[in-house]
Amino acid sequence: MTFALDATAQDLLFREAHTANTFTDEPVSEEQIEAVYDLVKLAPTAFNQSPLRITLIRSAEARERLVRRLAEGNQAKTRSAPLTAILSVDLEFHERLPELFPAMPGLKDAVFAERAAREQAGTLNATLQAGYFILGVRAAGLAAGPMTGFDAAGVDKEFFGDGRQKALMVVNIGRPGPDAYRPRAPRLSARDAVTTL
Amino acid sequence: MTFALDATAQDLLFREAHTANTFTDEPVSEEQIEAVYDLVKLAPTAFNQSPLRITLIRSAEARERLVRRLAEGNQAKTRSAPLTAILSVDLEFHERLPELFPAMPGLKDAVFAERAAREQAGTLNATLQAGYFILGVRAAGLAAGPMTGFDAAGVDKEFFGDGRQKALMVVNIGRPGPDAYRPRAPRLSARDAVTTL
Repeated sequence: MTFALDATAQDLLFREAHTANTFTDEPVSEEQIEAVYDLVKLAPTAFNQSPLRITLIRSAEARERLVRRLAEGNQAKTRSAPLTAILSVDLEFHERLPELFPAMPGLKDAVFAERAAREQAGTLNATLQAGYFILGVRAAGLAAGPMTGFDAAGVDKEFFGDGRQKALMVVNIGRPGPDAYRPRAPRLSARDAVTTL
Repeated sequence: MTFALDATAQDLLFREAHTANTFTDEPVSEEQIEAVYDLVKLAPTAFNQSPLRITLIRSAEARERLVRRLAEGNQAKTRSAPLTAILSVDLEFHERLPELFPAMPGLKDAVFAERAAREQAGTLNATLQAGYFILGVRAAGLAAGPMTGFDAAGVDKEFFGDGRQKALMVVNIGRPGPDAYRPRAPRLSARDAVTTL
């Protein structure tokens, strides 16, 4: 089996990439993250709903507000990361659908009038986009440290007080520092994860 | 801003890749999908929980059972795709955690004893893996056609009758056929999707 993607790129995105737990001081700019976003925004979501939102934690004050909502084991590494992103779903994503999916002008009201429908579809599609984003960070030559260990209700209240967005995960971004990586744990084999009918 | 990933790879995965709606007859083998899985399984999930399962619909009988659960607009293209995958979350993923995350032997029972906790974390992490998988299909030089328009309860009943798995999405996989692509709709700009605090 030959991939169209060359081995160097496979290594960069998957084989040699690891979740980083320490970071160097080298800064990561908003422009870098915007370039990552501009690449990964092209990957698909249902009805092109594009519900992912990215909140970059740059100021010391915002970082401290975030860190105290994280699980204890995630605090020190997040204080040391040059940039941290909260990935969230915009539960009002449907407002932009007439522009994002012009082929079905009625979609916004026909399918997504209810918040519960938006929460289900939006969470699924924003999480898909989170997967694209993590690989996009790696494509930029940076290491990602995604985390779900945080007080989600607390983060939502602190950063998304109007209830419009819900945090899905927090991602530290930077160059890996000393002892950045845990040994890679085993993965499930295809025999365990793939079934053919 | 320079990416570490070269422009050819960026194009393959993002810029020139599109969701396919028609497919050629060229077969897609289980080996190809297993190679995709073996690449993308390396990308991160929380506690390495790896909850994604892939059910490949190969036989005519299984395909017909799936197609009648799909939204009408997804039926013809799924009949014509050389291979279709149901991506699902294994709600008993925690059984494998002692092997997948040996650093925390108590994790299985301490955090994931309740099905509700497994459903929340498993759905999030399997959906992340679905994002990796879609890009992995593209890395293999194939086109993906992900769909969420189906009777999820019906698919679960038909394919996962014991309640252990829940379908997240269905993905047609193959070489793009004639008129495979819709025009690309606009995406949200970084100005709309990225905020810095």
